[in-house]
Amino acid sequence: MSIAPLAPAPVIYLVEPYGGSVRRQNTNMPHVFWDDAVVTRGDGIFESILIRDGKPLNLEKHLERFARSAELMDLPEPGAAHWERATEEAVADYCRERGGTEGVEAKCVWTLSRGRETTGVATAWLTIRPLDDDTLAQRERGVSVLTTPRGYTVTGDAPWMREGAKTLNYAASMAALRWAKAGGADDVIYIDPDTGRVLEGVTSSVVMVKKGGRLRTPAPGPGVLAGTTQAALFEYAAEQGWKCKAKDIYLNELFKAESVWLVSSTRIATRVKRLDGKKLPAPDNEAEIKELISAALS
Amino acid sequence: MSIAPLAPAPVIYLVEPYGGSVRRQNTNMPHVFWDDAVVTRGDGIFESILIRDGKPLNLEKHLERFARSAELMDLPEPGAAHWERATEEAVADYCRERGGTEGVEAKCVWTLSRGRETTGVATAWLTIRPLDDDTLAQRERGVSVLTTPRGYTVTGDAPWMREGAKTLNYAASMAALRWAKAGGADDVIYIDPDTGRVLEGVTSSVVMVKKGGRLRTPAPGPGVLAGTTQAALFEYAAEQGWKCKAKDIYLNELFKAESVWLVSSTRIATRVKRLDGKKLPAPDNEAEIKELISAALS
Repeated sequence: MSIAPLAPAPVIYLVEPYGGSVRRQNTNMPHVFWDDAVVTRGDGIFESILIRDGKPLNLEKHLERFARSAELMDLPEPGAAHWERATEEAVADYCRERGGTEGVEAKCVWTLSRGRETTGVATAWLTIRPLDDDTLAQRERGVSVLTTPRGYTVTGDAPWMREGAKTLNYAASMAALRWAKAGGADDVIYIDPDTGRVLEGVTSSVVMVKKGGRLRTPAPGPGVLAGTTQAALFEYAAEQGWKCKAKDIYLNELFKAESVWLVSSTRIATRVKRLDGKKLPAPDNEAEIKELISAALS
Repeated sequence: MSIAPLAPAPVIYLVEPYGGSVRRQNTNMPHVFWDDAVVTRGDGIFESILIRDGKPLNLEKHLERFARSAELMDLPEPGAAHWERATEEAVADYCRERGGTEGVEAKCVWTLSRGRETTGVATAWLTIRPLDDDTLAQRERGVSVLTTPRGYTVTGDAPWMREGAKTLNYAASMAALRWAKAGGADDVIYIDPDTGRVLEGVTSSVVMVKKGGRLRTPAPGPGVLAGTTQAALFEYAAEQGWKCKAKDIYLNELFKAESVWLVSSTRIATRVKRLDGKKLPAPDNEAEIKELISAALS
């Protein structure tokens, strides 16, 4: 991934975790301490939010999931109004520094950490930056995907396990992504190797379009994080007359679908054009689906 | 965990990842950037090393595991001489600022991150700080431990999965530890719930002492990280005439053992005094075992 070298600087706001102040942080200065739990243990949660034309998209669902992640991980309650205000201020700075809101797209990331070990106080911040080139390219040209096992099975018997929290523990996912790229692909879809049950992408939900105006996605659960973009899509699409269902999907179904998509907040939707080396034919309604997902986020 | 508030500051050295310079970093200034992979993805590796009387203990094994973790995670090769020199310099500073090496004990942590997304260059640093009160107390008084499932089973079928790398992805482990503490215990031993097979502690290896001078530990593999302290202990103890074996251990064996220990670099060895609420009787040779483990690290 690369960032255009001459773009204005990203915007960082430090966010006091208990509803205190928010303040701009110089991006050329580091702000994370050596003993912060995200640095020593990956012990924090995050959300990635798309900014479009000066507005955070699908904000309500990100706020909900952020609060749910915090609760699951015994972190302080983020406070929706607090984060909404911090995001607004940061977005206003970001757009002002780029000459206006129109046509400005960016990625906003919220991070809430258990904080510094020497203080025992949670730390939090948000960053806004341009979308990287890969994200933009993949929206246009689609992606080539390899399926792979998750590498582990969640057993559901650990009383402390917090399934469904969006933590920072992505080292394994990044390894899967490096493997896919080394194999000439762009992304991964995790599957259960015993049954072929489809789980999710590395940082996206899988959505399958079937004949008769039907949308399908794997139901959230162990190995499948509830997707904010997928949820917004299904709510909106149902209003537009699509038949939407979250239920088990199997690999062979992906090959027979009208189209297969990876949806996520910043990529919005990218069509899976190649799956395990096999070409998936372009559907007649590709533009319509893209428009549907984009509209669902507005 | 808490740090004595009036102690001199910890020591931080930034370590250039390709054998370049090392330099002291002011601990009152943050040094980790917003887009560092450890902050955004927990994507880095680490080692914790005990410093005693001005010397890093068991250095060779930590260097070996650090290099192995880096290789598994496709990170730059750390360079043993480079890290050894950086550690020496930092330890010298740390001891000088405390008036000498004698009796000084500290915890040194090496971190190697995939680095900043905006630069694409790996970042690395080491920190030296006093041992926390819990660590010191647990060495003396032992620990109360709850067993719990790992929460997942490693399936071994994912081609990109890097078992055996000591990554920063400890959010789940920290949740297990919070759960144990809420239940009045100090630590956790992971077991396979189907078979009762013993895996490891949250940040330690399990060692069991059996009659007839026998030491046992679960063999490293999925769910069991190779322990540097355990390895040093087994090598040294074997020379002293102990019979040492890394092989499967089951929960019921722990209850029948002469003694059960959690061993790790900074705690060295803490005896499990209570397991799932049942008291484990003190062995006659408790002091001898502690001395054995301590000597193995020198």
